[in-house]
Order: sequence, then structure tokens, then C-alpha cells
Amino acid sequence: MDRLRQQLAFILEIDKLKSILRQTLLIDRSRRENSAEHSWHLAIMASLLSEYAQGPVDVARVLRMVLVHDVVEIDAGDTFAYDVAGNLDKSERERRAAERIFGLLPAEQGRELRALWEEFEKVETADAQYANALDRLQPCLHNANTEGGTWKIHHVTREKVMKRMEPVKLYLPKVWPVVEKIIEDGAANGWIAEHAEL
Amino acid sequence: MDRLRQQLAFILEIDKLKSILRQTLLIDRSRRENSAEHSWHLAIMASLLSEYAQGPVDVARVLRMVLVHDVVEIDAGDTFAYDVAGNLDKSERERRAAERIFGLLPAEQGRELRALWEEFEKVETADAQYANALDRLQPCLHNANTEGGTWKIHHVTREKVMKRMEPVKLYLPKVWPVVEKIIEDGAANGWIAEHAEL
Repeated sequence: MDRLRQQLAFILEIDKLKSILRQTLLIDRSRRENSAEHSWHLAIMASLLSEYAQGPVDVARVLRMVLVHDVVEIDAGDTFAYDVAGNLDKSERERRAAERIFGLLPAEQGRELRALWEEFEKVETADAQYANALDRLQPCLHNANTEGGTWKIHHVTREKVMKRMEPVKLYLPKVWPVVEKIIEDGAANGWIAEHAEL
Repeated sequence: MDRLRQQLAFILEIDKLKSILRQTLLIDRSRRENSAEHSWHLAIMASLLSEYAQGPVDVARVLRMVLVHDVVEIDAGDTFAYDVAGNLDKSERERRAAERIFGLLPAEQGRELRALWEEFEKVETADAQYANALDRLQPCLHNANTEGGTWKIHHVTREKVMKRMEPVKLYLPKVWPVVEKIIEDGAANGWIAEHAEL
């Protein structure tokens, strides 16, 4: 039963992802979102929006990819997209986390999930590109429905939002007009800054 | 773009599942678990434990099934497993919820997710049996790691726990010895009552 014991150890360990808070607010603005429920949200989106993906995607693989894409945050924490300093050593912190956390599993299962996470991070395959586009689209929808959400709280500029949303433009081109309109309206409402503060 | 608009309306609506609290505690005991993060946890379990399923299962279908299995709680609320009164009208409340929530989607996507939810509820197919066993196993693991958790808080008897865990015995028989040991230890620790209170 050693194999089952390893699997259960991983299953218990990842419960901690429910306590990793992202910057994104829930749509009812009651609190910040955690990375476990965020991953659930992406998985449902992945199962519904594949018709808009740029390349042919394997939805079952993408589901498993988005389900584990943030697990490394248990050790490495969630690094806010617009945090310059935090993003400098992010990949090394996350590499060590992947080593430990996926290492709890039986070897072949750990390798498989770790490979899916690395694929997500590299954004080179159609599956990873679709997954990354969803990961950008979801907080954008939340910001649009929480009066600017993190854009407003952190005074993010239109230029930075446009750059951040690029995976949607590239990999979900048919959804891009919706995001473009959200950014347009966000700027018009003063939720997205036109220029960096002096 | 009406189709995309319907899909996005559903995606925004289901954010509410993050505010539906279950009785189960997080393993660090900081708070109760919500149904969105619970569904995420089950999906990862489904991708890892299929080797123990009784019949051959389609893991990709099971993933989608567990991801949506609690969405009806947005309208119907989470009914605690051991709440007799609440379980009397549960199915009618949930049926109406399914009608409204899955009805937000384009017709064929709504039908598909609703059918997956109904399949989960009926527990007749190998996929639904595997999913139901996971749905019983996960809170059991949490209770075992939170000094009895909801068993202790709600004075649940061994007989009721055994009945509740039956899907694990039937559909994940190779995992059953682990659950049996957890129940044994739970009773020995006084977390599970031997008899109903007078």
C-alpha cells in the first residue's frame, strides 16, 4: 500500500492551495480568491471554451494542466502578475516547490504532473497556450465585474494590461474582442490608468 | 457572439460556488471548505486514483463530472450529509437549480453538463460510482486529519459513517481498508460516537 500512501500524502498536501490567496477578488467582492478555487474555475472554462482555441487542443490534458498549474504556490506563494521584484526569483522558487510537491507522488505520476506544469509554464504547445489564455481571461472577467478589481487597487496601466492579456489575443482570438472592450470600458471608467503615476 | 455571451454568463455565475460553505474543515482547521475548492480537490483525486476504480472509468468524463457536481448548490445550498430534514426536499431544490444554472449555457453544452450532474446523482455508471466514492473519501480524509472534524462536531455515529462511506467500499474496494482503519481509529479516539446520544 506504499503507492496509495504516497498518493494520499499528495492529496492531503495540496489542501494547502486553498489557503494561498491571489490578488483577484470574488465577483461579490466579499474576499480575495484562492488558488484552488481559481484552478477549478479555469478547468470549467477549459471544458467550455475549447471551440475558440487557436490550435487543436486536447481538453482532457488541458483540464489536468490547469488543475495543477498553481500547486507550486503552496511553497512559492502567489506572485502578483504586476509585481516586478517578486517575479525575478519566481521560477527558481517554483522549481524547488515542484521538486518537493510532485515528488510526494509515485514517480511516474509525479513526473507526469510536473511535466504538465512545466508545459504550462513554457507556453509552447497548443494545450499550454489555451490554458495560459484562460488563466489571463478569468481575472480579467473578475476585474470587469468588480469595478476594476486589482487593476484599480494596484493602479495598473492600460499598457501593462494589454501586455498581460496578449495570450488571449494570440490564443483565443475570437474572444479577444470581448477583452478589448473590457479594457476600453475599464479605461473609460478610470479603473485602468492611462499612464503610470509620477 | 450570443453563444460566447451565454458561456461567459455561466462562467461568471458559477463564481458563486466559491461562497457555498460545506461542513468539512480545511486540514489546517482555519475555516470550512467551500464547494468550488472541494470540486477542484476531487478532480485531482479523480486523475490520480482511477487505478483503484471498480469498473473501467473514463477519467476525462469523471473530471468534468466532479467539476460540476456541486454547481446546483449555488441555488440549493449545501445539504449536510447527516441532515435528515434538509435531505427530504434536496432533490427538488437541486432539480430547479440545475434547470436555471445549466440553462444559462448554449443548449447543447447545458444539456451535456446537466446530464453529467444527473449521472453523478444516480450513481449507476462506473464513472458516477467512481466520482461518488471520491466525494465520500475526501471529507473522510479531512476528518481523519482534523481530529474528527465534522464527525466529532456533529456527534455522528459509527453506523452512520459506515453507511455514508459505503460507496468507497463498493467502488474503490482497494482503498476501503484505509477508510476502515480511519473509522476504527476515529471511534477509538472518541471522534466517532459508538451510539446515538439519548
